[in-house]
Order: sequence, then structure tokens, then C-alpha cells
Amino acid sequence: MKNYKMIIQYEGTRYKGWQKQGNTNNTIQEKFENILHEMTGKKTEIIASGRTDAGVHALAQTANFKCDTNKNCGEIMDYFNKYLPDDIAVLSVDEVDLRFHSRLNAKSKTYEYSLCAINKPDVFTRRTVYYIDVCPDTEKMRIASQKLLGTHDFKGFSSLGKTKKSTVRTINSIEITENGSYINIRINGSGFLYNMVRIIAGTLLDIGLGKADAQCIDLIFNTGKRENAGITLPSKGLKLVEVLY
Amino acid sequence: MKNYKMIIQYEGTRYKGWQKQGNTNNTIQEKFENILHEMTGKKTEIIASGRTDAGVHALAQTANFKCDTNKNCGEIMDYFNKYLPDDIAVLSVDEVDLRFHSRLNAKSKTYEYSLCAINKPDVFTRRTVYYIDVCPDTEKMRIASQKLLGTHDFKGFSSLGKTKKSTVRTINSIEITENGSYINIRINGSGFLYNMVRIIAGTLLDIGLGKADAQCIDLIFNTGKRENAGITLPSKGLKLVEVLY
Repeated sequence: MKNYKMIIQYEGTRYKGWQKQGNTNNTIQEKFENILHEMTGKKTEIIASGRTDAGVHALAQTANFKCDTNKNCGEIMDYFNKYLPDDIAVLSVDEVDLRFHSRLNAKSKTYEYSLCAINKPDVFTRRTVYYIDVCPDTEKMRIASQKLLGTHDFKGFSSLGKTKKSTVRTINSIEITENGSYINIRINGSGFLYNMVRIIAGTLLDIGLGKADAQCIDLIFNTGKRENAGITLPSKGLKLVEVLY
Repeated sequence: MKNYKMIIQYEGTRYKGWQKQGNTNNTIQEKFENILHEMTGKKTEIIASGRTDAGVHALAQTANFKCDTNKNCGEIMDYFNKYLPDDIAVLSVDEVDLRFHSRLNAKSKTYEYSLCAINKPDVFTRRTVYYIDVCPDTEKMRIASQKLLGTHDFKGFSSLGKTKKSTVRTINSIEITENGSYINIRINGSGFLYNMVRIIAGTLLDIGLGKADAQCIDLIFNTGKRENAGITLPSKGLKLVEVLY
């Protein structure tokens, strides 16, 4: 039995996210597990660093699985790429220590949320960027974003219902960059709650548009109330960029 | 009666090219003419700078049409963008001199052909880049491309059958740039014959891969024979970048 780590890429548009749910066949996990089943003859779970939601993309998601096979890593990669649809790809396969676990061993993750303020969505980026009507003040967003750095209870920045699990997370960095009409919000953190990046992006956008001011972030931390934060921006603008171990 | 010039953008993947053909509804010209018919109540031809083939994209195609309408240019643009599918967009509409003709007045056009040598197509660029297995020698391609500059009979670089029309064209510039694994061949010329950019790209690729040498370009010019040139590369890698007047 060997343990394999894969770096994978997907355009999430057509899928109900990473994690399999009931008897569907439109999650990314199922696409992988069906191919692995075909390859090894055994049902095997593939573990990703975390679930990504319906419509969310990944430039470099990490996943691992344990199996017995005569194939080497290059052959395993080629086998997956032969049978995967063209909106999912394996970028690399490596054998790793048997104790390696994609989710439990992840040290930090980087997500990027992409916005663009133009009158009509660009046809070439329409699946991966969220288009807005009015250009926000990115300097205001940048200043406000610094309040999010460090370790906080991010409960108000999540769509979780009641939970007994900790909602404390650490954000290491937030960078807001502009390229023409495009605005990218890049966040690295120890881990993220359900919808957390999309709610942070929605809150920063409200601040950039003057609909809220930076103090609202203190209020959200202090009250832990979801309704004090901005909307959950659409999934299409979100990409998992990197997972560090 | 006024004459309107539009700059338009499209991802050609789903379409049989710009030009309407018989009774289909899957050309870009039809999409525009149907909306204009709805807007003005009259059937009106929309003239583009040139037809683009099935699957070819446009970053900035130019087209014009004449009509009577109370709408101003911004309203015309919004009307089109409201009814166009999300892989076609109007970037601008301007009123121009009644004599302006998108095709006859075009001074030069720029096309770009995009190649990439990686083991599995990148999921985010798979519709607009042609993927190849082996990385070509771009310096060889660059040197050979200089032989194409200037005014020549490009008959051997086209898929035209017998024609009495002139096959002489002028290429003003060819730039071959690299960005990671991506290679872009950017060509500006007075006009292009049927499949000319894709055959030039195929010929330069053969030279870069060592399947042909730069002298083959002289042979193609001297004989005018299509079979001496490289293959017609797939349409998905081709983009009309700009039309100058």
C-alpha cells in the first residue's frame, strides 16, 4: 500500500463542488474516485485539503489517496488525465509518507477572489471573475483588510449554523492587487470556515463602495453576527490557489 | 440613416464562425442581426472586418451597420449586450461617417496564435490555446518568421481552391513571445487569405520542432503549393486581436 499526493486543477463551473453528496455524479471527488476505482478495481477515498463549494475553482488543490498499483507516478497521472473531463486536470503525482494526510497536515491555504468593474463581462474570463458595476476604492479595502490579519473568531464571517467546533482562525496575509479593471483579493490563512473568503470579499467590497466603513470589521468580530458582514459573493470569482504543508 | 461602428469580442468555441451560412442560427453574424432586427424592426446586414472561421475567437473585431434609431450609442451597446449570449460582447458603439465600411476600409489586422507545451491542457485556457506535446525552438521560429515579412504571394499559405483573385498580401510584423510554457505568434498584415494565419503558425511550428527548415518558406513562396507548408493548426488557438483603419 502506497500513499500518493496529487496537485490538481479544476474549473468548478459545472460541478457541485469537491465533496461527493449522495448519489450524484457531478462532484469533483466522484470524478476522481470513479477513475481510481477503474484503475485499481477497489473503491478508495480520495482526500482533498478541503472541500471547495459548487462553482469554486482550483489552480492547485492538493489531494491524497492510498492504493496498490504497479503504475509509477507518471503513469498514474497520465491515467487520470486520460479519463478526466477537460475542465479537471492532474498537474503532478508523488509518492509520500504513509502518514501524509491532505486535510489534517495542511499548514495554510491561499485563496483568491477576482472582481472586475466593466460594463459587460469579458467573454474570456466570465467563468472565473465576478463582475460589478461600480469600481470600488481599493485603497479603502486595503486599509480595512489589515484589521482581519492575525488570529480571531471568524464566526461572523461564515455561513455556519450553530457549531460547537472552534471558529477561531488565523489570517497570515491579505493582498489586494489591481490589473486594469481587475481586482484580486488574495488571502493566506491557517484554514477557512464555510463561505469565509466569499464573505470577507463581500465585506471588503462594501467598504470599497462606501456602503460600510472599516469599523464594521470590529463589530463583526465583537458580535460574531453574520448579518453585520457583507454578502457572500458568488462562487465563480473564487479560486483555491495553493495549499502549503 | 446613421452608420454605427462596433468593437466586439467573442469566444468562438460554440459558433460556426462570423459569417451566416444558410438557415443555421449558430453564427455570430446571425446573433447580432437577429437582435438588430428586434431593435429596429428591419432586417439589416452587419458587416465585419472579415469573417472569422468556426471556433476562432476575437478580442476586438470591428463591425458596422446602418440603421435609423432613437437610441444613442450607449443605449445601442446596452441593447446588444442585454440580448447577446455571454460568450459574445459589444465593447463600444460609435457613430461614424456614412462611407465607413468595416471590411473595405480596414488597413491592417492583427491575429495571435497561442500554443502551449505542457502534458495536460490547462483547464482555464483550454478553449483558447492549442496544446502540443513537445516544446519547439522558438529562436528558430523567430528567425524563419522574418522571411514572411513584406509583400508576397501567399497562395501556398492558404486553403483556397483555384481563384482568380489576388493572393498577394503584405505582412508588416511577426512577433513570437514566450510566457512560461505559452508561446504566442502575433502577426500584423494588410489582410489574410483563408486559413493563412493557422498555416503560417503550423509551418513555423514545424520549423521550431525541426520537422522542416526555414528554407521551406522560400519553397512555398516559389511554388505556391499548399502541400509544402505545415498543417492548418486548430481554430481554437487563433484570436483576431485588432483591426486598424
